[in-house]
Amino acid sequence: MTGDGKVAGWTQVNGELADSLPLSDRGLAYGDGLFETLRVVGGRMPLLTRHLQRLQRGCAALSLSVDLALIEAELVAAAARLGEGVLKLTLTRGSGPRGYAPPEQPTPSRILSAAPLAATDPRLRDGIALFPCRTRLSEQPLLAGLKHLNRLDQVLARGEWQSTEFAEGLVCDQQGRPVECTMSNLLVWRDGGWITPSLDHCGVRGVMRDYLLDTLTAQGVPAEERVMDMDMLYSAQEVCCCNSLIGVWPVVRLGERSWPVGPQTRLLQTLAEQVYQ
Amino acid sequence: MTGDGKVAGWTQVNGELADSLPLSDRGLAYGDGLFETLRVVGGRMPLLTRHLQRLQRGCAALSLSVDLALIEAELVAAAARLGEGVLKLTLTRGSGPRGYAPPEQPTPSRILSAAPLAATDPRLRDGIALFPCRTRLSEQPLLAGLKHLNRLDQVLARGEWQSTEFAEGLVCDQQGRPVECTMSNLLVWRDGGWITPSLDHCGVRGVMRDYLLDTLTAQGVPAEERVMDMDMLYSAQEVCCCNSLIGVWPVVRLGERSWPVGPQTRLLQTLAEQVYQ
Repeated sequence: MTGDGKVAGWTQVNGELADSLPLSDRGLAYGDGLFETLRVVGGRMPLLTRHLQRLQRGCAALSLSVDLALIEAELVAAAARLGEGVLKLTLTRGSGPRGYAPPEQPTPSRILSAAPLAATDPRLRDGIALFPCRTRLSEQPLLAGLKHLNRLDQVLARGEWQSTEFAEGLVCDQQGRPVECTMSNLLVWRDGGWITPSLDHCGVRGVMRDYLLDTLTAQGVPAEERVMDMDMLYSAQEVCCCNSLIGVWPVVRLGERSWPVGPQTRLLQTLAEQVYQ
Repeated sequence: MTGDGKVAGWTQVNGELADSLPLSDRGLAYGDGLFETLRVVGGRMPLLTRHLQRLQRGCAALSLSVDLALIEAELVAAAARLGEGVLKLTLTRGSGPRGYAPPEQPTPSRILSAAPLAATDPRLRDGIALFPCRTRLSEQPLLAGLKHLNRLDQVLARGEWQSTEFAEGLVCDQQGRPVECTMSNLLVWRDGGWITPSLDHCGVRGVMRDYLLDTLTAQGVPAEERVMDMDMLYSAQEVCCCNSLIGVWPVVRLGERSWPVGPQTRLLQTLAEQVYQ
């Protein structure tokens, strides 16, 4: 407990308090695993079902057999204890001998890290500049959309700038088409509807992105996935990025192009914030 | 020590005996690191320089600043202690807070694992069958050729078969062109020379592959990198795969195509085996 009565954070492995992992874990050896980062509000995780669904898709893609009910129970207990903050779940194929071949009977590692929500400059809510990353995303349809542990693309892209002038960076595919930002998804408002890049060959399918698309569609607002190109982005009337921790950040600048914080983005921001109320 | 006086193996982190790593390590979080697997013979590592060169290329690509002289010294000391076997070095960007941004002053983790050489069926030296993997390699020119920790492609490909009928699997790029095998490089003998797939957009540049190419060239035997297609592979007179642990394995079957163990492959095998004599 901290002085103000809040839980400061802890880490656990397979349900036990721990701060380290065996060197033989395949998460370390090969990035052989998945992760989820969940925002906790009032002891609850509002987008939990979507996080678990993405985790389940990842497990299917990696042929990783896990007890999702146990994972959910551990998350629910941790969220109740944490109260407010962020839970990061890392799920690996567990320990194994040297070599790529997955063990026949793996014992997956469930790593849970609970922490306070990092302080974010509230001004980001009123517009950010995007850094134009030169790093392009690996193309791998088998892993596209998943939140797996092979994240060197994002590390390289995020390592391209240090200036706080840029809160996020735009990342393109191997053909130079916009796909996402380093830690969030991209949405553009064009001709009366929202468009977000399709994530069939690379990118992470964010739970906030999916929530917003579903909610907009249910409200009758056009919202679709499409292969995007730079022209579509530059000619958009509004641009924003989203994830489950930050909500929605309006994008007001990319290179020499600038945008206003438009009314559609403010509506989207409200939708995102309602999730956590 | 084992009963026969040989050292059985150990693991160390940053020069100290250890068998675990902090959960905050970015090797686990993002696969943010590199590795090398070195064969130790008579207390020495015959291809050490090439391993260190690849590690250095990897560090440059990841903007990872490390003390390569210290790493070499630790490897040399470990090899002398191990005598015979395999050293695996994993180098990560070390611990950091949540988020892709690399820490400004990272403290890399040097993880060293020493183990006996796994027993291999000696018959593999006389020919293996290749499993035709459906998994295709991610395309990422920024990381191509490097031995980084993002290895889900290899995990997926190697997970496609369990039968001992196949000692290795052929892996292609996103266009279906042969690039390598799951843990070794591919070489084909065609029209009086060796050809190996170029590794500009995906694949791992093996130290044994480079050693063989350089040695062949020095001996006046044509040996070149080229974009390969399935026709070039199927129409080859001899096929083999190589890495620094197995040496050279002749490939005698892929699907319905079979090859003899040819004289050029036997010569290559001898070249590889001379490294460790």
